[in-house]
Amino acid sequence: MNKKDDNVVIFGMENSKKLANEIGEYLGREVLPVQKITFADGEQLLYSDTTVRNKTVFIICNTSKPVNDNLMGLLIFIDSLKRASAKRIICVMTYYGYARQDRKASGRQPITAKLVADLLEASGANKVITIDLHNPSIQGFFEIPVDDLRGQFIFSSELRNRKENFVIVSPDHGGAVRARQLSELLNTGEQIAIIDKRRTAPNVSEIMGVLGNVKGKNVVIYDDIIDTGGTIIHAAEALKAQGAIKVIIAATHGLFSKGFDMFENNPIIDEVIITNSIDHSELSHYSKLKELSMAQFLGMVIQANIKNTSITEIYDAYSQGN
Amino acid sequence: MNKKDDNVVIFGMENSKKLANEIGEYLGREVLPVQKITFADGEQLLYSDTTVRNKTVFIICNTSKPVNDNLMGLLIFIDSLKRASAKRIICVMTYYGYARQDRKASGRQPITAKLVADLLEASGANKVITIDLHNPSIQGFFEIPVDDLRGQFIFSSELRNRKENFVIVSPDHGGAVRARQLSELLNTGEQIAIIDKRRTAPNVSEIMGVLGNVKGKNVVIYDDIIDTGGTIIHAAEALKAQGAIKVIIAATHGLFSKGFDMFENNPIIDEVIITNSIDHSELSHYSKLKELSMAQFLGMVIQANIKNTSITEIYDAYSQGN
Amino acid sequence: MNKKDDNVVIFGMENSKKLANEIGEYLGREVLPVQKITFADGEQLLYSDTTVRNKTVFIICNTSKPVNDNLMGLLIFIDSLKRASAKRIICVMTYYGYARQDRKASGRQPITAKLVADLLEASGANKVITIDLHNPSIQGFFEIPVDDLRGQFIFSSELRNRKENFVIVSPDHGGAVRARQLSELLNTGEQIAIIDKRRTAPNVSEIMGVLGNVKGKNVVIYDDIIDTGGTIIHAAEALKAQGAIKVIIAATHGLFSKGFDMFENNPIIDEVIITNSIDHSELSHYSKLKELSMAQFLGMVIQANIKNTSITEIYDAYSQGN
Amino acid sequence: MNKKDDNVVIFGMENSKKLANEIGEYLGREVLPVQKITFADGEQLLYSDTTVRNKTVFIICNTSKPVNDNLMGLLIFIDSLKRASAKRIICVMTYYGYARQDRKASGRQPITAKLVADLLEASGANKVITIDLHNPSIQGFFEIPVDDLRGQFIFSSELRNRKENFVIVSPDHGGAVRARQLSELLNTGEQIAIIDKRRTAPNVSEIMGVLGNVKGKNVVIYDDIIDTGGTIIHAAEALKAQGAIKVIIAATHGLFSKGFDMFENNPIIDEVIITNSIDHSELSHYSKLKELSMAQFLGMVIQANIKNTSITEIYDAYSQGN
Amino acid sequence: MNKKDDNVVIFGMENSKKLANEIGEYLGREVLPVQKITFADGEQLLYSDTTVRNKTVFIICNTSKPVNDNLMGLLIFIDSLKRASAKRIICVMTYYGYARQDRKASGRQPITAKLVADLLEASGANKVITIDLHNPSIQGFFEIPVDDLRGQFIFSSELRNRKENFVIVSPDHGGAVRARQLSELLNTGEQIAIIDKRRTAPNVSEIMGVLGNVKGKNVVIYDDIIDTGGTIIHAAEALKAQGAIKVIIAATHGLFSKGFDMFENNPIIDEVIITNSIDHSELSHYSKLKELSMAQFLGMVIQANIKNTSITEIYDAYSQGN
Amino acid sequence: MNKKDDNVVIFGMENSKKLANEIGEYLGREVLPVQKITFADGEQLLYSDTTVRNKTVFIICNTSKPVNDNLMGLLIFIDSLKRASAKRIICVMTYYGYARQDRKASGRQPITAKLVADLLEASGANKVITIDLHNPSIQGFFEIPVDDLRGQFIFSSELRNRKENFVIVSPDHGGAVRARQLSELLNTGEQIAIIDKRRTAPNVSEIMGVLGNVKGKNVVIYDDIIDTGGTIIHAAEALKAQGAIKVIIAATHGLFSKGFDMFENNPIIDEVIITNSIDHSELSHYSKLKELSMAQFLGMVIQANIKNTSITEIYDAYSQGN
Repeated sequence: MNKKDDNVVIFGMENSKKLANEIGEYLGREVLPVQKITFADGEQLLYSDTTVRNKTVFIICNTSKPVNDNLMGLLIFIDSLKRASAKRIICVMTYYGYARQDRKASGRQPITAKLVADLLEASGANKVITIDLHNPSIQGFFEIPVDDLRGQFIFSSELRNRKENFVIVSPDHGGAVRARQLSELLNTGEQIAIIDKRRTAPNVSEIMGVLGNVKGKNVVIYDDIIDTGGTIIHAAEALKAQGAIKVIIAATHGLFSKGFDMFENNPIIDEVIITNSIDHSELSHYSKLKELSMAQFLGMVIQANIKNTSITEIYDAYSQGN
Repeated sequence: MNKKDDNVVIFGMENSKKLANEIGEYLGREVLPVQKITFADGEQLLYSDTTVRNKTVFIICNTSKPVNDNLMGLLIFIDSLKRASAKRIICVMTYYGYARQDRKASGRQPITAKLVADLLEASGANKVITIDLHNPSIQGFFEIPVDDLRGQFIFSSELRNRKENFVIVSPDHGGAVRARQLSELLNTGEQIAIIDKRRTAPNVSEIMGVLGNVKGKNVVIYDDIIDTGGTIIHAAEALKAQGAIKVIIAATHGLFSKGFDMFENNPIIDEVIITNSIDHSELSHYSKLKELSMAQFLGMVIQANIKNTSITEIYDAYSQGN
Repeated sequence: MNKKDDNVVIFGMENSKKLANEIGEYLGREVLPVQKITFADGEQLLYSDTTVRNKTVFIICNTSKPVNDNLMGLLIFIDSLKRASAKRIICVMTYYGYARQDRKASGRQPITAKLVADLLEASGANKVITIDLHNPSIQGFFEIPVDDLRGQFIFSSELRNRKENFVIVSPDHGGAVRARQLSELLNTGEQIAIIDKRRTAPNVSEIMGVLGNVKGKNVVIYDDIIDTGGTIIHAAEALKAQGAIKVIIAATHGLFSKGFDMFENNPIIDEVIITNSIDHSELSHYSKLKELSMAQFLGMVIQANIKNTSITEIYDAYSQGN
Repeated sequence: MNKKDDNVVIFGMENSKKLANEIGEYLGREVLPVQKITFADGEQLLYSDTTVRNKTVFIICNTSKPVNDNLMGLLIFIDSLKRASAKRIICVMTYYGYARQDRKASGRQPITAKLVADLLEASGANKVITIDLHNPSIQGFFEIPVDDLRGQFIFSSELRNRKENFVIVSPDHGGAVRARQLSELLNTGEQIAIIDKRRTAPNVSEIMGVLGNVKGKNVVIYDDIIDTGGTIIHAAEALKAQGAIKVIIAATHGLFSKGFDMFENNPIIDEVIITNSIDHSELSHYSKLKELSMAQFLGMVIQANIKNTSITEIYDAYSQGN
Repeated sequence: MNKKDDNVVIFGMENSKKLANEIGEYLGREVLPVQKITFADGEQLLYSDTTVRNKTVFIICNTSKPVNDNLMGLLIFIDSLKRASAKRIICVMTYYGYARQDRKASGRQPITAKLVADLLEASGANKVITIDLHNPSIQGFFEIPVDDLRGQFIFSSELRNRKENFVIVSPDHGGAVRARQLSELLNTGEQIAIIDKRRTAPNVSEIMGVLGNVKGKNVVIYDDIIDTGGTIIHAAEALKAQGAIKVIIAATHGLFSKGFDMFENNPIIDEVIITNSIDHSELSHYSKLKELSMAQFLGMVIQANIKNTSITEIYDAYSQGN
Repeated sequence: MNKKDDNVVIFGMENSKKLANEIGEYLGREVLPVQKITFADGEQLLYSDTTVRNKTVFIICNTSKPVNDNLMGLLIFIDSLKRASAKRIICVMTYYGYARQDRKASGRQPITAKLVADLLEASGANKVITIDLHNPSIQGFFEIPVDDLRGQFIFSSELRNRKENFVIVSPDHGGAVRARQLSELLNTGEQIAIIDKRRTAPNVSEIMGVLGNVKGKNVVIYDDIIDTGGTIIHAAEALKAQGAIKVIIAATHGLFSKGFDMFENNPIIDEVIITNSIDHSELSHYSKLKELSMAQFLGMVIQANIKNTSITEIYDAYSQGN
């Protein structure tokens, strides 16, 4: 693989190495490793062993669990690049930890998603590229540009290839827009459905039913994040109860904070589709887990940032069945 | 009315003068006028004619229509206070213009709600107090503290006094949380209802039905902003069609961008309740419009900021039927 | 007209569209339109519909009346460009609103010309190009570079072409330097004259006489801004009284806050010459109004900013009778 | 002299020690010395030897010749106070060096008066109090508050006490406003006069005459700064030639960059009145030099900053013949 | 214990709770707990459940292992306080993680100690109090004030009480100043000794001998940090070989990254004295470990920050055998 | 010498002109002069008389005695470049004044080395290149990148050429690392020696002896700065007393604050080797002073910054006997 002569370098953080290499392969560019030393007291030292002087640097990274180690590692590496005279530092954060702490839910709470933005800027990041931010308003937490990419294109490509009709289901009222966007990309003429959750007592949320018709349909419950997965499994049960045939769970970011067994062993779940925004090589033996790679999509986006072209054109290509 | 000797002064911007005076009366404090000159070329000059040296300054203000004139006037006045050595400048913005431009809805859009935050900070504001921000994540657009007050307490006080049972209705999926919070404050045992809107064709949104039971009920459609009001009137019609008896529309911020006639003249609407976050003296002759004053509520909040006490305690007082 | 392949794009704000197009024609570059939506509540949305990723962007703009709408529109558009990853945002502000509020004239006043500078920087502007700033010290209100161009070259070109001798007159003591610079460019051997205004009572300013010889001369009263025009018309009268033959009023920025009739209908005024720093298409039917275009001059300056050459060379070319 | 128990401390820089002590005496407060060590290599170390923790600190200072040493000394001392946890650092700069470099007079020039503002802010100053800034727009070079005091009150007090009628003369067109303000404070019914300078050839400025009547009058040529004094002596000659009887030169800031002999030995000059904004103890033997102390005036201003009262009231007191 | 009525609150982070409570006891003030929730995905939420509005807040904290979790937790808590309108946020960081990454040891390295300073400031800290910073120049990494306390007073108090003569030994050339300061506080007339380490081959450091006389002496090897402890044990061996009788190791910060067994089980080591800058309750069963409490010392320093008195006076008290 | 067409310009400040010209010669680039006017009152005006629009600018400079004039001159020139739209401003500061004020040595002291960093950033510097900073942690005082070059390569080249064996001696415990690095570059198999200084009474430092073997050796005492030179001469005496044959003093930065006579006239000193980081043309007549030029070394570093290559490669070349 040849190095390009355009003052661009790409790094992959340790926990994004696999995805970074795929992107590098797509782009025909070498992905440079991040040097990392962990000392006996747990402190980390990260740096590049090749020059970044006056170069545009892309860092493929994500701040999934352990979130604090991954975030601090990223900040330290950014600091090292800034002090090594990098020209522009662009973080391609495929998963943005703390994104759900995006407002003061009650008095005296922090807004940690904003704090993370402040820390990235303080350390020297010049631009951030994210994918399916939990709350798109997080873009406004930054002074620097943020391109929040739409992961739905990755899912629409996959689902279109399956030559089946799917009803896209939002797991709650708040996700209706996201579900509708995916549904429209599939262009199958199906309406979306929405899980109707209500609070029946303080802190007790109960699924009241399903809005829309899922009877005899194959459904895809579509969300941005699967954390432990408890709620979404309840949603799957409700859909089956309403007569859904096949139930697929799809989400950009699979955290699986309590592991994957609860999905694998639940007969109601037919399949769980996620992207490689977080590396899940350790789950590859599970039969129900399907991982879609964002490598090509991110590769095209990085290319657009190198060639100064529009990302909208990439979306258009995907919309038209690329 | 006596001046207090605590280095606190309160100003009311021109378009908030009425509310500011009510607050002043509640607090037993003089509300100082903002001096304003508009020149032949449309430029404005705003300043205080009494000293603010080393004082904590509260500015009662709102940036409703004409939004740009009101915002620039506010920024100019803040600049004048900063340069006059005010100690702290606290904007009590009862309505935050441009709040709905809170994300890049598509590529290359501005995030004007964030820009407004940047401008307030650049001009010298030290803190902002808002009420029912369209998107609570706007708090995270600021480096300075933002107290986003919950207007629901003003509505719950009013509705409790009416000794009727109301079903609170959210006009769309996204507003369900807000509706539920109000419903719980009323503590009538009623479940909320939700207007189920779906997109039936590109850019065509159609009301599919009402989730929850409104038959034979008095309902309150509860939203944060009434702009032109078109959508909410359709919601009212749907509720009547489902058997609702009395239909009240309630919203913190009444913009009425196309006037109030369409509410007054529509027999389906029984009442429209708003607060005085935006001054509507010019609409006072309409029989269906009910304006609730935030003066006491904001007065208590300002007092908490002077005495360094907790706002949560104010909420608790309101919750318990203050 | 062909697009150049140099990562430069030029936008013209709505109220500068005519001038922007002339500049584009001079440069052989397309001037891109600014997309603008105004909502029912008066809020504006501005953005570009083509990519600006990593490009140097020039915005031809001015913040004349309605100053607050024009300024906020500009700030919003700058925010959209910053967030769309523009490389450099250069505002070519042909008229800088609020420039006359350039100091605390008395205690507790704002310095709005400085505030405007802070707002432009806060929104993301990287450089500002102005013309005949009311007070050149406004350059020092900015951290970013400001090129304050000298409009006198536009007037000297025009006046030299007329093959007449003119005495340049400053309308007050403060404008003597500006008048002398223009006079020297004309190089006719004439001394300048100065209108000697004195305050005879508080807030009463009276013209005491004319310093310098204007008898039998054609005179040009030269100022930076004509606002309502009241004072300058008095000056014209004084000059006629001293024996001046032809009286021309010349100013870079014509606001005409009370319209043009008072000039057109005043027999003492022979002609009013302004530039197109503010668009005056609506006044084109007045016979005494002569508008000089800055298009070529600004085109050369923009070219210097693209090619990294010196503006002094442009001045030299104009001085030598270009 | 007793220390007050109000968390305020006052320091006098070495070159302002005399004035600082007078101010301290007026206020009944101790003025603390600034510890200063100059090393063999010319580097300076400045610090306080008493605690300033959480105190409001006033620094009486000026940045006259040697300007760079005085400015750096001030910046170093501010840094030491900031790091010693001072609450607020207020510089009372009686003379602001580099004030005349207040714009880019031609391309590629610095704006050093702005740079000085940036340096003061970068080092940690929270507020600046100046007197008769060469250009009041320098206030706008700061983000922090600047109180630019009017020295004319010091001169009007002195001149009123003399029980003579004076015609106030501006040495150039630009100083007419300043002269008029002083004249009005004296309230003697006299009009001001203006020295009419014109450029007769490139870089050659010639006095053309005197505007206004000075024949048989005692005159005071009033300026902000006397640098070498060459120009103002020419003005004095012109006034004598026009029949002025007594010619007094008055200026807030006396630099006397080429010494005082040229004034003392010139029979046309009757007296030179300056303030102690710059210490001139070394000139005290000259018979024609009269130094007015700003100690009381500045003491009142500092008191207003401690007591949070208005400076306008101080002006009013002086205007009414205090 | 009564709350004081002075708008001061003190929090203890989880890993500093024990020390914080001791400080609270000394001061007669309640130490408030930091509310902390750790979610399934490892993200943390920290906040106060009592109001901090306009209060001066002290946070007793340290960023020892796990350094990234402790640091992020601290930053999040600071963010929550800033947004809750705290007046001043003062971090009492008893151990500053990453302090040893204080320069670019070779090209392209980060300066993580500086990054940590940037992050603390970005999150909203207003002041930092540290103790025995590994490199005192880290103070200069901050724009905000840093009080780096001298832990030697804690050790001198302890050692003086022992009524023995000790020779203080620096474990390397760089620590000579620190050893000498402690030695002078003890005032026993003993000279210090220095372990003479040299590099005999690349990356091989060998103890060449001991400078100074330790024969027949009781020695204290004094350092700022014990990490794994390998090097310092070699130093102890060298001292014993030179005839030292009792060998005590003393250090402000005990990390013990490889546990304490290697000290406990080494017959050459008589005692290890550390402070409670890092909590070591889990090591309390070791017989050779002596922990000195900084509670009183820090309590006095916090008191000085509340009462605005000098820390030098505290040092003086300790020097004189308090 | 031809100008290169790569948008790079190099300036030499007045007190670095000689070195700058040597660098220019090495690079085959014209070094542009800095225009400088000093006014009668001591204020300076510095600017470029050719365009720097959008260019990368290197300024060869040093802030040796008179440090305040040199520093302010540099800041003013940087301000002028920033306002003239330079793209990047890189200060090549061969000597960094105030570097030794790098911590609060006692309470309430400034950290002037940090202040200087703040001032450079405030004026507009984008990058700083230094050589043998007194304390490498000063790199962390900056937000912008700092390349602190290692001057030892210049000395190792010189000493290797002499074909003699030298023992490198550190003049104090703190300089052992620096001495060892130079020794390793020479690769002669010699161990370093260290002057063992101890404090025998408050403020009395006495040389106790020499650690390491210097008997019969030629020695080089190696330090970063020679200020007055008193201490280093004592060190030389101690070395001679221990049997050293030839004693050379070598230091990157020669201040010679009390002149060079004390070296020239001292028979114990054989030679003093410094670099031209500070211009010493005025000392060129002294026979014992040897000045090494950094021109080639800095030229290679500037070239690396232009060509975006690694500085480590330059070090490697020097290490291998370039």
